[in-house]
Amino acid sequence: MRGGSWKTFVVAGLLLGLSAWALGNEELIKLAQNPSEWPLYGRDYANTRYSPLDQINTANVGRLKVAWIQSLGTLRGQESVPIKIGDTLYVTTSWPNNIYAVDARTGRLKWKYVSDTPADAQQYACCDVVNRGAAYGNGKVFFGRLDGVLVALDAQTGRELWRATVVDYKAGYTITSPPIVIKDKVITGYAGAEFGARGAVVAYDMNTGRELWRTFTVGPGPEYDNSWQTDAWKTGGGTAWYVASYDPEANLVYYGTGNPAPWNTAVRPGDNKWSASIIALNPDDGRIVWGFQTTPQDAWDWDAENELVLVDLVIKGRKVPALMQANKNGFFYVLDRKTGKFIQGDKYYPHLNWAKGLDANGRPIEIPEMRPSLTQYVDYVCPVFWGGKNWPPMAYNPKTGLVYMPGNNMCMSIQHREVTYTKGALYIGSKHEHKPGPGAGPAKNLGQFRAFDPVNLKIVWTIDERYPGWGGALTTAGGLVFYGNEEGEFKAVDARTGKILWRFYAGSGIVAAPISYAVGGKQYIAVSVGLGGEYALLPGEAGKNLPNEVNLGGYLIAFTLD
Amino acid sequence: MRGGSWKTFVVAGLLLGLSAWALGNEELIKLAQNPSEWPLYGRDYANTRYSPLDQINTANVGRLKVAWIQSLGTLRGQESVPIKIGDTLYVTTSWPNNIYAVDARTGRLKWKYVSDTPADAQQYACCDVVNRGAAYGNGKVFFGRLDGVLVALDAQTGRELWRATVVDYKAGYTITSPPIVIKDKVITGYAGAEFGARGAVVAYDMNTGRELWRTFTVGPGPEYDNSWQTDAWKTGGGTAWYVASYDPEANLVYYGTGNPAPWNTAVRPGDNKWSASIIALNPDDGRIVWGFQTTPQDAWDWDAENELVLVDLVIKGRKVPALMQANKNGFFYVLDRKTGKFIQGDKYYPHLNWAKGLDANGRPIEIPEMRPSLTQYVDYVCPVFWGGKNWPPMAYNPKTGLVYMPGNNMCMSIQHREVTYTKGALYIGSKHEHKPGPGAGPAKNLGQFRAFDPVNLKIVWTIDERYPGWGGALTTAGGLVFYGNEEGEFKAVDARTGKILWRFYAGSGIVAAPISYAVGGKQYIAVSVGLGGEYALLPGEAGKNLPNEVNLGGYLIAFTLD
Repeated sequence: MRGGSWKTFVVAGLLLGLSAWALGNEELIKLAQNPSEWPLYGRDYANTRYSPLDQINTANVGRLKVAWIQSLGTLRGQESVPIKIGDTLYVTTSWPNNIYAVDARTGRLKWKYVSDTPADAQQYACCDVVNRGAAYGNGKVFFGRLDGVLVALDAQTGRELWRATVVDYKAGYTITSPPIVIKDKVITGYAGAEFGARGAVVAYDMNTGRELWRTFTVGPGPEYDNSWQTDAWKTGGGTAWYVASYDPEANLVYYGTGNPAPWNTAVRPGDNKWSASIIALNPDDGRIVWGFQTTPQDAWDWDAENELVLVDLVIKGRKVPALMQANKNGFFYVLDRKTGKFIQGDKYYPHLNWAKGLDANGRPIEIPEMRPSLTQYVDYVCPVFWGGKNWPPMAYNPKTGLVYMPGNNMCMSIQHREVTYTKGALYIGSKHEHKPGPGAGPAKNLGQFRAFDPVNLKIVWTIDERYPGWGGALTTAGGLVFYGNEEGEFKAVDARTGKILWRFYAGSGIVAAPISYAVGGKQYIAVSVGLGGEYALLPGEAGKNLPNEVNLGGYLIAFTLD
Repeated sequence: MRGGSWKTFVVAGLLLGLSAWALGNEELIKLAQNPSEWPLYGRDYANTRYSPLDQINTANVGRLKVAWIQSLGTLRGQESVPIKIGDTLYVTTSWPNNIYAVDARTGRLKWKYVSDTPADAQQYACCDVVNRGAAYGNGKVFFGRLDGVLVALDAQTGRELWRATVVDYKAGYTITSPPIVIKDKVITGYAGAEFGARGAVVAYDMNTGRELWRTFTVGPGPEYDNSWQTDAWKTGGGTAWYVASYDPEANLVYYGTGNPAPWNTAVRPGDNKWSASIIALNPDDGRIVWGFQTTPQDAWDWDAENELVLVDLVIKGRKVPALMQANKNGFFYVLDRKTGKFIQGDKYYPHLNWAKGLDANGRPIEIPEMRPSLTQYVDYVCPVFWGGKNWPPMAYNPKTGLVYMPGNNMCMSIQHREVTYTKGALYIGSKHEHKPGPGAGPAKNLGQFRAFDPVNLKIVWTIDERYPGWGGALTTAGGLVFYGNEEGEFKAVDARTGKILWRFYAGSGIVAAPISYAVGGKQYIAVSVGLGGEYALLPGEAGKNLPNEVNLGGYLIAFTLD
């Protein structure tokens, strides 16, 4: 634990008034170097979700106990991952998207910010009224809200410093994920592809809230002619609605983009770049430096928004600056994060049945009868529109070389249909039904939690779950993986073997990823609890058992050794 | 732990089909004799809130840890005390007043019953949309709802067996407290004095829901002529809104009754019996056998509803069948529960300043200038209208001979004013303002938790609390007292010394009383958590700090030794 040196750094930074430029960037990198901290959604710019702490480990995790609970004061899906800076956790909530500063040691509130998010913003949330967390930089916390507003608060007091309206929520645009702070900028995407939003990434001056640049993710471009053969790109989706990664050396910020809109492909011939893609932008000017499309002309709702984990891997004897993604479409991708070049990939979801594999450039080799259209009904394509894995994030442990990820074992029937764009109305154009995957049934094997080897592209171990995997992963230097499930069970697993070493019943569904931090010489594990999100609250077969078994909720629990 | 013998009893009872008469009564007494159980709101008919379990004790309570959490799926004041029968907890919630069967060992839901309580019932809750718990009898669970409906459910499945509309909620009548099962009857009161309700106790056939008798608490009666000198009794309050006690030997059921309505005394000359009184009824026919009025012609909102604890005490060398109450008016009463005769009493709230004491019959010796009226403004009368202690229940420990109670240190200014009765509208007729008690201030010493000697009428120890005491007490054979506060702190205290031995931060205000039970050879402590109730949500000075410091919440936490 290097709490001492870290404190010195922060205090010095504040006192010396280091330039905003230096702080925005360097402060977060420095914080992430301190094992006690969890300064970003994925802990570090690389989104590893790896904590270097090892006080809690495979030998003693059986003694893990609740240290404190903090109520979140709202119900509905609590997808929020706290960040931890010094002795404070910052945690957001489901609608109205409040944010609280919580004493990391005692669980007590330091301040609370109750958002004035209008009630009607809730109707534009495609997938529950969630918020996934906040970002920190230069003494400020930043978070986006369901009403498309980005807010900057004083981290010490919770006082609002500025707000910016990023998008018009009445058109179906919402913000559900934390922004990213880079240099003097706070950068955010937004959601809304199901309402015909056109995706963009937008940068603000972190000190003033002034908009600096706005880069649309979809539309015609010189380097990808024919990608949009109509003007469907104007309502073309590709929203960058989840969390970004950043490579300070390459000075590239990475986003996965959502599905093109509408689902009905007939109106949008072409590959529809950069929807369902991974893109790298220069944060200084917003220029897209490279793009890599995972599902050209997506017809299945396979967003490529899933988190992008940046690690250096040794593949076939060569060290590569990798970017990894477990994509909704069922494939695991390893790209060169400097160039966007495809290095390798294979399915991580064993029952993927829509493509034969990936070609040398990483483009899927489609099986034509698995592609739905206005005229083609597909009875059983895997994975389901929620993906082999949805946004709940994976974690990478450098000690095992494995990634740990929640996943779904569900398939679907699907056929497109005509739909007309109307501002603020759903713009989907598809009739689809989710079905249990192979070997699954109602409340049985609908999810899996997996360890995956990104070098050898192999599943190492699997834990079956009754419901889809909606709780993200944490891995630690203690040789552990932590995750929760929609039934409300929170587990510690041996990172090497997949053996469950500890369980705690948390009383509501877990649809957020845990974190780990240390304060006062003690390591803690913390996780938000509260059933909700895209799967759990869905009416019908998929979700119908869950609300009978599990209550809504909203609280943050911190665990430590007794 | 006599779990074995208890199980035999229940199974035998179910198999042999013992008559409902026998079960209603004898089953609960038998259950209460099993230390592992918590079959009634106050554990036993006597409302002692004493658990004979001692696995958790003064020596090891420091090792107490969270065993599990169950979300209650609602926010607002969670005043619910679970009952525990066999391996199941039954816990109710704030509006819409759901009830859940929870596995006492794992915390998992066995079934949930989501109430169809209409939303507009919420506007008739004088003091937050709470529910304080359920009653058990003969394989059924019973609970009342904010909409005046009493529901009977199958304890195994949660299936609704019958419902009865006890009162019309649109007139301002609500049910917030558990009924009591005696013989073949389930008996309930209701709330509503602030809306001009006329109080009653009502009995139903526990198997069919048929109404058997209804005894009004206020109105003219031969034995108390002149008590109501106008017809104000028709909207005269005196509601029996809290929990009953029962003496099987005397066959008397005891209720405390609420304040008379309106607060303005001008319209109701006389003592206004049996408002602000303790009454004993024969549960077979509902006849009032005796009454004892604590605040004749109450002018301060000093309901006498507080729990009535039935124990045999030795006072001045004589064993007396006592009934004890710490009344809102600041006095502690010891009555003969067979006859209603006053034995002794004195103030338990040290700053009581409205009376010189109690006379030989237990009638307060009032200080005339402390009585508000239309023409008399009283600037600082203590206790406040919330009482020296409100409904949050005290506990009696036979090993120490002490009662343990939360309390308030608040006073008020008050003057009456004219008010006209309108169905469904507030009917109060008073202008009053709460003020910190002596030595208190905003968020400072507004509450105390006390041990009180009911024989010698002396405070034994006191723990100061920043906010009023809204969490009830539990005491155990392990020499412990447990209670929570509105800040969200849950404490274990040495019953003899008042020393705090253990604390847990629960993340939302605690306004319910804990229980203790055993299952699988392990002792548990359980408490509902969720800020709310009469004080916490009040706008203005009283509550204003609380919502800034503490979030709303809703969960049941069970603790056990690690």
